[in-house]
Amino acid sequence: MGGRNEVLRRQSQRTKFNNTDMDFAFNLALGVSQIVGMNPGEVLAAVATVKDGDPRSWRESFYREARFLSRRADSCVQSGKLEQAGQRAFGAAYARRFALGFASPNTKAWNIIIHEMEQEFMRGAALSHVPIRPIEVPFESSSLPGYYLEIDGAPRPTLLVVGGGDTFREDLFYYGGYPGWRHGYNVLMVDLPGQGKTPDRGFTFRHDSSTSIAACLDWLEANASAPDARIALFGLSGGGYFTAQAASTDSRVAAWIASTPITDIGKVFSSEMGGVQKAPGWLTNMAAAIIGRTNSALQVSLEKYAWQFGTKDFAEVLARAPREAPIVDASSITCPSLFMFGAGEAKELARQTQALAAAMKARHQDVTVRKFEHAEGDAHCQVTNLKLAHQVIFDWLDRRFCTVSTASPESAPQREPTH
Amino acid sequence: MGGRNEVLRRQSQRTKFNNTDMDFAFNLALGVSQIVGMNPGEVLAAVATVKDGDPRSWRESFYREARFLSRRADSCVQSGKLEQAGQRAFGAAYARRFALGFASPNTKAWNIIIHEMEQEFMRGAALSHVPIRPIEVPFESSSLPGYYLEIDGAPRPTLLVVGGGDTFREDLFYYGGYPGWRHGYNVLMVDLPGQGKTPDRGFTFRHDSSTSIAACLDWLEANASAPDARIALFGLSGGGYFTAQAASTDSRVAAWIASTPITDIGKVFSSEMGGVQKAPGWLTNMAAAIIGRTNSALQVSLEKYAWQFGTKDFAEVLARAPREAPIVDASSITCPSLFMFGAGEAKELARQTQALAAAMKARHQDVTVRKFEHAEGDAHCQVTNLKLAHQVIFDWLDRRFCTVSTASPESAPQREPTH
Repeated sequence: MGGRNEVLRRQSQRTKFNNTDMDFAFNLALGVSQIVGMNPGEVLAAVATVKDGDPRSWRESFYREARFLSRRADSCVQSGKLEQAGQRAFGAAYARRFALGFASPNTKAWNIIIHEMEQEFMRGAALSHVPIRPIEVPFESSSLPGYYLEIDGAPRPTLLVVGGGDTFREDLFYYGGYPGWRHGYNVLMVDLPGQGKTPDRGFTFRHDSSTSIAACLDWLEANASAPDARIALFGLSGGGYFTAQAASTDSRVAAWIASTPITDIGKVFSSEMGGVQKAPGWLTNMAAAIIGRTNSALQVSLEKYAWQFGTKDFAEVLARAPREAPIVDASSITCPSLFMFGAGEAKELARQTQALAAAMKARHQDVTVRKFEHAEGDAHCQVTNLKLAHQVIFDWLDRRFCTVSTASPESAPQREPTH
Repeated sequence: MGGRNEVLRRQSQRTKFNNTDMDFAFNLALGVSQIVGMNPGEVLAAVATVKDGDPRSWRESFYREARFLSRRADSCVQSGKLEQAGQRAFGAAYARRFALGFASPNTKAWNIIIHEMEQEFMRGAALSHVPIRPIEVPFESSSLPGYYLEIDGAPRPTLLVVGGGDTFREDLFYYGGYPGWRHGYNVLMVDLPGQGKTPDRGFTFRHDSSTSIAACLDWLEANASAPDARIALFGLSGGGYFTAQAASTDSRVAAWIASTPITDIGKVFSSEMGGVQKAPGWLTNMAAAIIGRTNSALQVSLEKYAWQFGTKDFAEVLARAPREAPIVDASSITCPSLFMFGAGEAKELARQTQALAAAMKARHQDVTVRKFEHAEGDAHCQVTNLKLAHQVIFDWLDRRFCTVSTASPESAPQREPTH
């Protein structure tokens, strides 16, 4: 179970901060540096002024770094160093993204930083020649914001990346978009209801995400240059639940990857996230703040979750989810599936992963479980070993889709002659 | 000046360890994860069992991780996952390399670990299709061990990477070899006298490294498939002094890159490394060890340096270097030069960099100084932002050698279609 001071158990060890949510965020920032955006040195410069557990110092430090990187991107553009400019712009986008990690949506800064993040993200993509474009997926009376990365007009497999309770669609780029592009996949990355900035459009998390994922697949059918039935769903964190719902109901899902697969989100809430309820309530917190003992980083997170769920507080989510969130019918999941989980993650996530895999194996279905050991990085969503996770994913997926399964350019790209 | 507890000031902030030499080694390991080898999660798993300042726990932790990665590489080979196998093998090589960072050459384990590191390094290169081969550069009555990375038989520019007091030739691969290969350069990486395992061949650091670098250039002339006059020297750390000697005397050096350039190594020793002399002597150390107050990590480093210098202890080096090490004649350096230094580095290194650049500019020579600010990672040898350093180097070098200077594949490689 997550302790009193963290939302969810997501790693087995402490790197720098005693506040575990903040330590996980630090590990995420270091991990993303392997793929795109900030260098480790830029992450370390940002955290140098972070006070352990203090969300304000975290926000200010990463936003300061973000502005620095934006200026660097500007000057690189001016001097014609476009490759450097692209990386700095991506870094400027992700420094803002990390700043948002301990920010409240109930502030003026929230939307300003999101807007700047989106601009820097698109600047980074353009300068790095990543063929990505912002899209809107029609949904109910409005739409869901997304990015579509289409390599060219040829038929290609598509990866639809689905995040969880803490993702913006920009996060889906380092989780799946960038490596997907490198491996020859088109990639669709959309904020589902409750994710990213969608609560401001009136969308909050709902019991059934199969309809919003179906809307993404509808969009793909209508807009892909060359329709291709090889469509894989990749769900991360809470996205392991959302994609389970789609995999069990939508026959267009040709392969399913989840880190981790979740069939009973209510059980995850009650077993693993109840710890935060033991944190002192708001009034107690105010008193605690005065004597400096509150966990304000946690409170910011809980405030954000309430906004995403459309509830008055996170306690309401914890009370209602176990009663209201439907259990996914595992027997109707028949597509080839790859499940990944880390040894340092919450026990209930491992339990549901193993149980689902066992049930599918009993039905002789194509299911693979990849456990990430402590020695290779055992964190939630494989944030400290993304490159390895990507190798695992595309090794597996290339074989399922009968595409080239030999060495791909992800971690050891072939040299490109420039001379 | 380096304090009582560190060899040299190499960064401006602390990441995890109070022992600054160990903290720098940790930052290096995280930084290298951006380029090749261990994932951040593997580095974090290793340091989880390191006791701050305790060299033995560092060695054992990284060696445990190294063995784990070797086993993983084996199983990936067996299951045909060759890309994963290549990265795991490189990781197994570098985990051993990092273990050696706090090991003494006066132990049986030293040569065993070096041998295993070399084997895993070559396995990683082969599995990753990096065309690298071990070579021996004839020198005096023996030879210097090196690696030569030749892309093909076409004329291409060559980068000769030269390390410092703490490098093995395998380190030169992430500093310059791998990115050089990605940018279309042939690369030569050699352990000069005193470096790597050369003290076991009777070679120790000497006053003049221009002769050993000349031997490398002789080797290149005799062995390159297509001789090409575009030869760049890249010196790191103490290599900034060794390459300065060659740049001032060998007309075959067509471009010089140094991080940082050093013309007066004696001054660096006397100004920046004298702090370690204030550490208690051996007898005092023994007493201190009993009450647990010794800095054993530092003592291991000093023992290694004495072995590399061929002196009875490091104090002798500190006493003799300022008197004996020649000052490089800056006026004879005429090739285009790029100097890099970090804002967190020792002041004397920054001073010599600026002084040399000013002298060269006064003579209207082509010299560029790139200072790495705190906000972008200000560590020695740019260990926390290697990807950025590589962009800076090849942007600069491509222009000097009149090769393609537009976006190169280093940090945003073009996707390679596999479908």
